[in-house]
Amino acid sequence: MDKILQYLKENRDRFLQELCTYLEFESISAQPQHDKDVRRCAEWIAAHCKDLGMKAEIAPTKGHPVVIAQTPRTRSSKHKPHYIVYGHYDVQPPDPLELWNSPPFKPKIENNRIYARGVSDNKGQHFAHLKAVEAYLRTGTELPCNLTFIIEGEEEVGSKHLTDFLKTNQKRLACDGAVVSDSGMPSLNSPALTYGLRGVAAMEILLTGPNRDLHSGIYGGSVENPAAVLCRMLANLHRKNGKIAVTGFYDDVLPLSRKERSEIKKWPYREEAYRKSVGVPALFGESGYSPNEQRSARPTLEINGLTSGYQGEGSKTIVPSWASAKLTLRLVPDQKPKRILQAVKKQLKTLCPPTVKMKITEGHYGEAYLFPLDDPRTEAALQALKFGFGKDPILLREGGSIPIVNDFKKILGVDTLLLGLALPDDNLHSPNEKFDIRCFERGMKMSAFLWQKLAQN
Amino acid sequence: MDKILQYLKENRDRFLQELCTYLEFESISAQPQHDKDVRRCAEWIAAHCKDLGMKAEIAPTKGHPVVIAQTPRTRSSKHKPHYIVYGHYDVQPPDPLELWNSPPFKPKIENNRIYARGVSDNKGQHFAHLKAVEAYLRTGTELPCNLTFIIEGEEEVGSKHLTDFLKTNQKRLACDGAVVSDSGMPSLNSPALTYGLRGVAAMEILLTGPNRDLHSGIYGGSVENPAAVLCRMLANLHRKNGKIAVTGFYDDVLPLSRKERSEIKKWPYREEAYRKSVGVPALFGESGYSPNEQRSARPTLEINGLTSGYQGEGSKTIVPSWASAKLTLRLVPDQKPKRILQAVKKQLKTLCPPTVKMKITEGHYGEAYLFPLDDPRTEAALQALKFGFGKDPILLREGGSIPIVNDFKKILGVDTLLLGLALPDDNLHSPNEKFDIRCFERGMKMSAFLWQKLAQN
Repeated sequence: MDKILQYLKENRDRFLQELCTYLEFESISAQPQHDKDVRRCAEWIAAHCKDLGMKAEIAPTKGHPVVIAQTPRTRSSKHKPHYIVYGHYDVQPPDPLELWNSPPFKPKIENNRIYARGVSDNKGQHFAHLKAVEAYLRTGTELPCNLTFIIEGEEEVGSKHLTDFLKTNQKRLACDGAVVSDSGMPSLNSPALTYGLRGVAAMEILLTGPNRDLHSGIYGGSVENPAAVLCRMLANLHRKNGKIAVTGFYDDVLPLSRKERSEIKKWPYREEAYRKSVGVPALFGESGYSPNEQRSARPTLEINGLTSGYQGEGSKTIVPSWASAKLTLRLVPDQKPKRILQAVKKQLKTLCPPTVKMKITEGHYGEAYLFPLDDPRTEAALQALKFGFGKDPILLREGGSIPIVNDFKKILGVDTLLLGLALPDDNLHSPNEKFDIRCFERGMKMSAFLWQKLAQN
Repeated sequence: MDKILQYLKENRDRFLQELCTYLEFESISAQPQHDKDVRRCAEWIAAHCKDLGMKAEIAPTKGHPVVIAQTPRTRSSKHKPHYIVYGHYDVQPPDPLELWNSPPFKPKIENNRIYARGVSDNKGQHFAHLKAVEAYLRTGTELPCNLTFIIEGEEEVGSKHLTDFLKTNQKRLACDGAVVSDSGMPSLNSPALTYGLRGVAAMEILLTGPNRDLHSGIYGGSVENPAAVLCRMLANLHRKNGKIAVTGFYDDVLPLSRKERSEIKKWPYREEAYRKSVGVPALFGESGYSPNEQRSARPTLEINGLTSGYQGEGSKTIVPSWASAKLTLRLVPDQKPKRILQAVKKQLKTLCPPTVKMKITEGHYGEAYLFPLDDPRTEAALQALKFGFGKDPILLREGGSIPIVNDFKKILGVDTLLLGLALPDDNLHSPNEKFDIRCFERGMKMSAFLWQKLAQN
């Protein structure tokens, strides 16, 4: 490792320069006027991988292309484990531009941070992995694993064509596992392995009462108000203790182990600071669980939107014709999204009175994810984090979803190590996105060591 | 009465012609481009009253003027009771024009009906009263009452300046009662005295939770959802039996008397036809009361609008920052709007958890109205209706509000007889507004007889 660490140190400034070049591409996947920029960005990173000695290609999809780059296969390759490293070269739109302190596509280095759109999400993060590979290749050090980088161009628009890409390339992508650095850690002092993600399931309820908005004077009192019915039904989906009142909802929920709960207690967290940061008068969640458990390892049912009747200035004396609500559920292992959607639907049917007609529309859904903590690679990843950051890492569960992880599991049959390098204040998707250069440096070191450790399992 | 009835019969066709002239004015009070038409309409009706031998003037207000017309005062006048007849010469906008079968301001007579904007609401209705006066004056018959017509030009925009007008003219408007034909009857066979109106009180609730829409994956579970709190609070404002769960809400409600309940049973009403007309799968209201009682004589609390979070296409996985609801209450005698607003506010405060901030904004309000059924003028009005329509009249309570009635009570200290001549299918405020000529004819006859009966009390 010494040669590699030496190389990473000596070439740090050039790496930063290269990263800045990479950041100058306006690879905004959501905006068709930037299609050429997206394409040029893919070409640049593919060429860069080739320069490093990798076999790289630009694989077309029905949308923006995927860049695939493989480390050179040698005679000893067939005895090595094969890992996929996932990242994405596309970025969020930079708007609102007026809130940026420097132009989003003219990277600025200041106070140990790089400011640019996409630097943390996700160019800087997968670039750290690429530079670790460069260190192996340029120092002539044998890479302990075969690596295939999949750097896609549609993550910010829902990775629409990645599932098809994985299916089509299933054979060449056959591997032992995946590594993704596209999430975060609580602080520079708390490097983290994210081993759990919540799933999601969306639905919309539409209740229709009268065939038109009715005059509340002439009709009001004899016709049930769909908005009132909706409120009553939704109110009945939670108990006072914050639990979800849907029959069978918790049946498949894996309980938090004692070990997990003690790990969660180690997360850097001050309740009062957290409360202030979200601006609520008081926190609230499922009884018997801490806020960090509630938002990472317990399922939820949230109303995302309510719509009914008159919403303008002043008042309108009507019984509205209809009322609707958008709901999403956050799910945890081993809840099955389809089964949960059915359970909620069934509950709503039980709650729905004969005075209104109900229509339920199911939306998108995805399963929760849990990396098996008894897998020896958990330990390998933690050791790599400790080596890279010089601090004891923590085991994180995150409350959001990363759909690609489920695709790796379903299509390639492998688990994913989530080794996020972003800090909470990196302003992902917001103006003044930044990436801490120390995260970059320590990430490269972590990555270089990770392949050693993973090869030992 | 014979001379008068003869006169009304002989001059019927001329009356209809005159009414059509009156209907040609585009007296749309809501649209400034029609200000001149509104003015010209006021001038026409004032001149018409003068032609009939009345003392008429156009009284300016801060908005559109009020036309006042008094029957000639004679030596015997001071011994006669004085009644105000209220009407309005302004009309609703005619839009959408493409849905009219004939131009809204070119009156068309067809199949015993006049089609034109404002014919039923309200030009045709007060014109019937004017023509009854004409019959007295032109036949040299002593009018048994002194009458003052107040025909305003701002009813369709909320009678904004009428309260001031009444206050300013309090002395000359001192009277024994008011007569208003600006409501309806269930059918030609059911002429009606409307003796009750519901009051109204409006409010808006705003609940604020987090200081921004929160990512439901990262935060969801540890922060209470303001939309869920709103639903729970609103759900708690009604009991299962349809009663309103606000402490003290029913304290001042006058119970329906046995006589009233038996009168309500006489209203022409078929439950299944009513249900179909509003298009609900099933009717619902306060238990222990019929639909007609529920919508006319019992108080309600309606959600008029709900707003929270994301309302566009698809889904957005957020915990919304805030949620709001617009409420109006329909009140009955002797509920006091201010007291009820306070009671609802207090209940909401009790229901509001410490996890959100609540802001309540009070809106407009008005008291309910009840004409005292033991007043002998009730009988006088019923006899006049029977005389005019040749059918037994019914006693109606209406669920809506007519604010002017409360003004007459508060400012002039008098009660109002509501003798509506509109039919349910007159398309008030809608395209193809019409007025049944039989309502007009019978209304004139009823009006002529009414003054006889009222003078006897």
